[in-house]
Amino acid sequence: MHKKLFIPGPVEVAPDVLAKMATPMVGHRSQDATALQKSISEKLQKLMFTENTILLSTSSGTGLMEAAIRCCTRKRAAVFSVGSFGDRWYEIAKFNNIEADKFSSEPGQPTTPEMVEEALKTGKYDVVTVQHNETSSGIMNPVQAIGEVVKKYDDVLFLVDAVSSLGGAKIEVDAWGIDICITSTQKCLGLPPGLSLCSISDRAYEAAKQKEFRGFYLDLVKLYDRVKKSHQYPSTPSLSHMFALDYQLDRIINEEGIENRFDRHTKLANILRAWAEKHFSLFAAPECRSNTVTCINNTINFDFADLNKKLAERGFTISNGYGKFKDITFRIATMAECKEKDLLELLGAIDDILGLEI
Amino acid sequence: MHKKLFIPGPVEVAPDVLAKMATPMVGHRSQDATALQKSISEKLQKLMFTENTILLSTSSGTGLMEAAIRCCTRKRAAVFSVGSFGDRWYEIAKFNNIEADKFSSEPGQPTTPEMVEEALKTGKYDVVTVQHNETSSGIMNPVQAIGEVVKKYDDVLFLVDAVSSLGGAKIEVDAWGIDICITSTQKCLGLPPGLSLCSISDRAYEAAKQKEFRGFYLDLVKLYDRVKKSHQYPSTPSLSHMFALDYQLDRIINEEGIENRFDRHTKLANILRAWAEKHFSLFAAPECRSNTVTCINNTINFDFADLNKKLAERGFTISNGYGKFKDITFRIATMAECKEKDLLELLGAIDDILGLEI
Repeated sequence: MHKKLFIPGPVEVAPDVLAKMATPMVGHRSQDATALQKSISEKLQKLMFTENTILLSTSSGTGLMEAAIRCCTRKRAAVFSVGSFGDRWYEIAKFNNIEADKFSSEPGQPTTPEMVEEALKTGKYDVVTVQHNETSSGIMNPVQAIGEVVKKYDDVLFLVDAVSSLGGAKIEVDAWGIDICITSTQKCLGLPPGLSLCSISDRAYEAAKQKEFRGFYLDLVKLYDRVKKSHQYPSTPSLSHMFALDYQLDRIINEEGIENRFDRHTKLANILRAWAEKHFSLFAAPECRSNTVTCINNTINFDFADLNKKLAERGFTISNGYGKFKDITFRIATMAECKEKDLLELLGAIDDILGLEI
Repeated sequence: MHKKLFIPGPVEVAPDVLAKMATPMVGHRSQDATALQKSISEKLQKLMFTENTILLSTSSGTGLMEAAIRCCTRKRAAVFSVGSFGDRWYEIAKFNNIEADKFSSEPGQPTTPEMVEEALKTGKYDVVTVQHNETSSGIMNPVQAIGEVVKKYDDVLFLVDAVSSLGGAKIEVDAWGIDICITSTQKCLGLPPGLSLCSISDRAYEAAKQKEFRGFYLDLVKLYDRVKKSHQYPSTPSLSHMFALDYQLDRIINEEGIENRFDRHTKLANILRAWAEKHFSLFAAPECRSNTVTCINNTINFDFADLNKKLAERGFTISNGYGKFKDITFRIATMAECKEKDLLELLGAIDDILGLEI
């Protein structure tokens, strides 16, 4: 039996989108491939509210996180973390011999503009990395307000991990001053995993060009140059994902509508949070709760593995906690194609299995 | 109209394999994902004649080439090149600040065991990279004989690029002493692009562990450790490709048979070479001609773009030359699912368009 995914990626993929993954192949140097890249870029610029260049990477979002911090950090990176994926950016820096400092918030608390201001005032940093949405803790950071701080520092590049939110929450890349905004396909975009993408500002590109030893496959300069030159990629990209992404972006922009999609995610998160607060408590502070994945404190100490096993028998899957909070939280994602009816069915099943008071 | 691909990747994908790309999603930390990884590994070990560990990478083959040379080179790499993709390994080294020397053969000539012996005798190198099959020049190198040389040097790791041959030509990884053997899905394996894979010996893993600054997404140690621990991957892999690969490996191993598949590739290459020698001449020397992609000298100076345009109208695509030989050679690939009938139709169409004597 297929289990409906309420985990923070991979997500349920609409059957017609899934079918596009089976599109017959074309050459990656063909006019068909060029047209596909152009079409995807234009649509993503709309969804991301940007005129910056769009780059696709046949890798997970982690690949583009590495590309961004490795290519952009010339002096030192200030890495702000509200959970495991924020920590990951720091790990990536260490494994690439890139100078970086990590600024962690208290559990459940956001990265604040004040924290960023304090770090940047030192003059030590030329890169800031922030999570727009942290998958492990269900925290959505105030990226717009943080962007206002970063804008004051001319030489600082602003890198944002929007892996688990882009397509489900509004991110105004240009207005918020984001130099590189990263996501991958298997979260709010509602596609299978295997492709990630980012927007990149010209000033980030120019900064990267100054740097030696940027690597090869994940070198943003090589990607950018090839896309600018021919709307193609240095290496063979995942054309299957590109066919499906192009189609899905039409569904998002023209069928559902971008704002409607964001509103649906907000509405689902509100329903889920109300349910969670009735029976448990929420991990994230009220001012920074994610609209795409909700992290819930297991206050009644139920057996998570047993719950998920019983949910599987009814055709659902949710996630346990992640990293340090693996055993004391659990997570439910309401991403991509999730509908109110789907969510209510899931919550009803949990109520029933755990014997929660309705 | 769909154009049948006779280019050296992407290739035609069988309809039932393509359909597997549209398999509904499962969690990448689920038992389903674990079983899929195990199943793929066991089948690839058969196809690659190895007991080494199999790693998948959601990237193009270039990604794993970078992973291999970056993680394995502790002192200096000896990069042997018979064309553009051989050169790429050297470029990758340079962009990662890895010490390397390039040893290029004359155009059309293979890498020889003697060249490798001469380099290794200096004691300067701890890594040898060789192309099993060079896509740009249609050269298949004597990897078995080269392996015999490398075996004499205990501390030297043997990295082989089999991107455009594995699955179409026999490569006995363990018998030939290959430490890392790399391929990607969109060539002889007959799948869409978007996933690459390699075998890795324990001694290559141990050597990599000694090295600092191996990067993150393309760090073979992290991939190896996670696969060994749980048959899963550090980042979300392209599950769609994994579903299709698992299915396709059954077709290769159980339906067609591994040896039959290699024989079919040899037979097709022989037909193509006989045709090419009748009308043109072959780029590669007789002792090193590829069984998967044939590079042909355009001795009659026909207009390639015009030919390919006319072929497209008849539903075929072939490739121009690559890199330095872009304008004076052209290439026809006979990879993956290609049948004798398909090839004869293509050659008949070229005869007809160019007015070649039959």
